[in-house]
Amino acid sequence: MQVAVLAHDSFPDRAKTAVGLLRYGDHEVRAVLDRAAAGQRVADHLRDVQDAPIVASMDEVPDVDALVIGVAPIGGGFEASWRADVRTALKRGYHVLSGLHYFLNDDEEFAELAAEHGGRLVDVRKPPANLTVAEGTAGAVDATVVTTVGTDCSTGKMTTAYELRDAARERGLDAVVVPTGQTGVVIEGWGIVIDRVVSDYAAGAVERLVETPVGMDLIVVEGQGSLVHPAYSGVTTSILHGSAPDALVMCHKAGRERVHGYESFTIPPPADYADRYERMVAPVSDASVVAGALNTRGMEDEAAGEAVAAYGEAIGAPAIDPVAQGISDDLLDAIL
Amino acid sequence: MQVAVLAHDSFPDRAKTAVGLLRYGDHEVRAVLDRAAAGQRVADHLRDVQDAPIVASMDEVPDVDALVIGVAPIGGGFEASWRADVRTALKRGYHVLSGLHYFLNDDEEFAELAAEHGGRLVDVRKPPANLTVAEGTAGAVDATVVTTVGTDCSTGKMTTAYELRDAARERGLDAVVVPTGQTGVVIEGWGIVIDRVVSDYAAGAVERLVETPVGMDLIVVEGQGSLVHPAYSGVTTSILHGSAPDALVMCHKAGRERVHGYESFTIPPPADYADRYERMVAPVSDASVVAGALNTRGMEDEAAGEAVAAYGEAIGAPAIDPVAQGISDDLLDAIL
Repeated sequence: MQVAVLAHDSFPDRAKTAVGLLRYGDHEVRAVLDRAAAGQRVADHLRDVQDAPIVASMDEVPDVDALVIGVAPIGGGFEASWRADVRTALKRGYHVLSGLHYFLNDDEEFAELAAEHGGRLVDVRKPPANLTVAEGTAGAVDATVVTTVGTDCSTGKMTTAYELRDAARERGLDAVVVPTGQTGVVIEGWGIVIDRVVSDYAAGAVERLVETPVGMDLIVVEGQGSLVHPAYSGVTTSILHGSAPDALVMCHKAGRERVHGYESFTIPPPADYADRYERMVAPVSDASVVAGALNTRGMEDEAAGEAVAAYGEAIGAPAIDPVAQGISDDLLDAIL
Repeated sequence: MQVAVLAHDSFPDRAKTAVGLLRYGDHEVRAVLDRAAAGQRVADHLRDVQDAPIVASMDEVPDVDALVIGVAPIGGGFEASWRADVRTALKRGYHVLSGLHYFLNDDEEFAELAAEHGGRLVDVRKPPANLTVAEGTAGAVDATVVTTVGTDCSTGKMTTAYELRDAARERGLDAVVVPTGQTGVVIEGWGIVIDRVVSDYAAGAVERLVETPVGMDLIVVEGQGSLVHPAYSGVTTSILHGSAPDALVMCHKAGRERVHGYESFTIPPPADYADRYERMVAPVSDASVVAGALNTRGMEDEAAGEAVAAYGEAIGAPAIDPVAQGISDDLLDAIL
């Protein structure tokens, strides 16, 4: 699929979805829309991702299949200044994908334009209507299933999932990420945003996702939240049990000791935390934490290296920083 | 509030909500509707609950404030044969409360009758629209907060919650149950059915519930599901963390060793299970399992007594069968 990605006034630092799509998506990105950086190129900002021109509006975009909303403003609203671009895309018959809280399908003008010109409006945060409770069957999936879990939110669970997939592919394996959050679902074009699913069906939705890919050697499930999180631990638990993984990779942000945004709650030490995940998953699987991913962003190289080594030692398993160092051979061996 | 309870062809054995309302509700039940038992009385079937006449239809019901749907057929549908009774109740201006999957508010005839005559249709399975993520504040509630947790579904978590409340009230304390499931919400006339809340807001909904009652000595939160359940563990976790309890009471069905309906999954032994709950709640509270409730229904008295003693010994805490024996003084002491 060929796509254009809308990231006005935000590319690249505040456009997580756009960057994820460029880095990990299978789609060909033919243009990034950012009026503040028009005339530049993706390669001027990011290394190791597909390149594309940055343009001011949809009028300058060559023929594509879809426009993807690649930014997620706080609150998840739709900005009025994006309307002309979405309108143009729909008039050309393209699909429009969005992970916003604001549902494009509920927008009368967009719904009419889509119906008239044959494009589809895809609101990825809206769960499918026909979900059910889990049946406890994900353990029977043939592929090796690895779930990335975290000691907190924003520790790199999605990034680690994609880096694991890419490392496995480089080794010649068939590997896929099962996306469970809005960015992943936009990147993949399939998946379910689990935190929007009613609690009763959350594990069932994950089970359905894990049972979807066929003929894979490795399925990497993107985890969410954390097991000690005062607000999101239910989502975490549903993904842990619903995915019935063969192995866990635990993601941590170096130096973080308190739950982000809930500073009165302490994050347990790594070894204790890994044990918590293993005990929690035990009723459905004998998976253990076989590897660690440490996010060392902002640290000096030497300090980062020491932190990764200490993290690996603490959890008794190979550890890396998936962004700074990439996935090592022995780490990939550990999960396969 | 004075109510009539609809339980056609189901009273008492297949009318869990009706029986719960009679046994634990603060409402005065003026009639039970069951055409198959019309002419009999509640007291002909149940001991230790408020008595009421059983009548064939709404036409024989004296003046009340509301009609409560007191049965929950498999699938949660609305039976056509109940329509005349609901119609009569609405025409008299009464409210109608329902825990069915079928929403009365979506029924055009009922919605019109309610609007015309001033009654309200209350679908308790529908969560409020303004829920948010948890803030992690429930630990600051003044009252002693006890959450009933279970080794599986249908182990007596709601019943235990109400028996604890009643025992505390007998001791002169102000005590209340925080209902988290459809039967409890119908009994109380407030609460939120947590398994219908989107995962992201489940803990937040529980937090809001726990922070609702004022001036209480004891708040008993009705738990749901179980921590090892392949489908419902996310709901369980959200209630555990959202309620930030001071103490846990663990409910078990004597002799059950496998997850009901998921027979390939084993239920851990009681001591191990109590430890799991304590570790899981630890990030938000230092609560421990201070008491056990064993459901011995169907067992001979002697065997039941032995099973209760063995259960208490296994978890190292006072244990009772809340239905057969009631709440003992030392058990109540243990939670206060």
